[in-house]
Amino acid sequence: MIRALVVDIDGTLSDRNRVLCPAAVKALRMIKTPVILATGNTHCFTRTASVLLGTPRIFIAENGGVVSHSEDEMEILADLQICEEAYQKLAEKFALQRYNSGRYRFTDIALQRNFDVQAAILHAREHNLPVDIIDTSYAVHIKDRRVDKGTGLRRVAERMGVDLRDFAAIGDSHSDLAMFELAGFRAAVANACQELKDVSDFVAQARYGEGFAEIVGHMIKEDML
Amino acid sequence: MIRALVVDIDGTLSDRNRVLCPAAVKALRMIKTPVILATGNTHCFTRTASVLLGTPRIFIAENGGVVSHSEDEMEILADLQICEEAYQKLAEKFALQRYNSGRYRFTDIALQRNFDVQAAILHAREHNLPVDIIDTSYAVHIKDRRVDKGTGLRRVAERMGVDLRDFAAIGDSHSDLAMFELAGFRAAVANACQELKDVSDFVAQARYGEGFAEIVGHMIKEDML
Repeated sequence: MIRALVVDIDGTLSDRNRVLCPAAVKALRMIKTPVILATGNTHCFTRTASVLLGTPRIFIAENGGVVSHSEDEMEILADLQICEEAYQKLAEKFALQRYNSGRYRFTDIALQRNFDVQAAILHAREHNLPVDIIDTSYAVHIKDRRVDKGTGLRRVAERMGVDLRDFAAIGDSHSDLAMFELAGFRAAVANACQELKDVSDFVAQARYGEGFAEIVGHMIKEDML
Repeated sequence: MIRALVVDIDGTLSDRNRVLCPAAVKALRMIKTPVILATGNTHCFTRTASVLLGTPRIFIAENGGVVSHSEDEMEILADLQICEEAYQKLAEKFALQRYNSGRYRFTDIALQRNFDVQAAILHAREHNLPVDIIDTSYAVHIKDRRVDKGTGLRRVAERMGVDLRDFAAIGDSHSDLAMFELAGFRAAVANACQELKDVSDFVAQARYGEGFAEIVGHMIKEDML
């Protein structure tokens, strides 16, 4: 039985321009079990999304660097200093441009996608930088390697008292792989990367928010929700 | 001719629980002219809403205390210190509880609605405090009296080079009155306060986001959009 969902935002509830799909907004209203948003966005962005989408104030932000347990309780799980040092190292070689939302960011650094990300990943590996460089196709994030959406999900599930296998995970990108490894049911939208589709129990035929709505419809039909 | 819309969020695009109505999300996609969000929420909340709703990064936050002209340009138009002093004065007499979003708030103070707001308004008036106390029915805001959604709209319109009379304003509460006074066309949702309905050119029969969708439908039918 599914007791909670953990759901990515960009590309899963939204279209390629990050705009919410009406079908996804509608589908969220049909779900009675708690929906935990899990995203690379900031705490403030994710909190706002939870208000506007009517989901709990329990969510995973900054790719697991920050989790929220309630309106009043935020937990920082990653170390920004590690990212800053890696950023300085990488900025010596690549022309990096930070996103302005930096002022709201606690644990990772978001960059514009106007540099050679693959080369930067190789560079970080060669120099043993203790960070992950993640291209979500909306932004590139430098993050503390010890956290991801999976460690965030572990923390949230523990506090909720919900077994990880009782979670359904829904997403579209590489950053969702870590939570897909933990959840009992995995579903990807049609625009998801192949690696995520490969580990999914269900892959929607529709893309973006319409794909999310299709997944919710499937889960209701299969008595999972 | 309508060249831009200025639209409230809580109670206009969302339901009474602040959750977006799918009808409103859908209606926004049918609008070709720029939609400027105008709200008592923080800059970060409003920016996130503009991302998720696909509206420009031009918006009015904190009831006119903050305006955004672009992703990179925020302008502070009000004085938080004035509000802090008034808050201290009022807290001597009323058991005020500040919202946690304070950490993201630049110019006004948001309070929970668990005190006698009318008495606080009288108290502020008697003591000549230079603030407005506004009950949006979602929160109570203490704000610098010199700014409101009207002064915010003036600033935004000026920078956009759009005449105020070419704006259509859509809202539901007292805090929308100041922008209704400036706009060339005014429309209220069915759940709006009577004062706003009294100065509206069109009042929707539907409430909340369905009312917003009805207003957009009306404006399209009347060739205003």
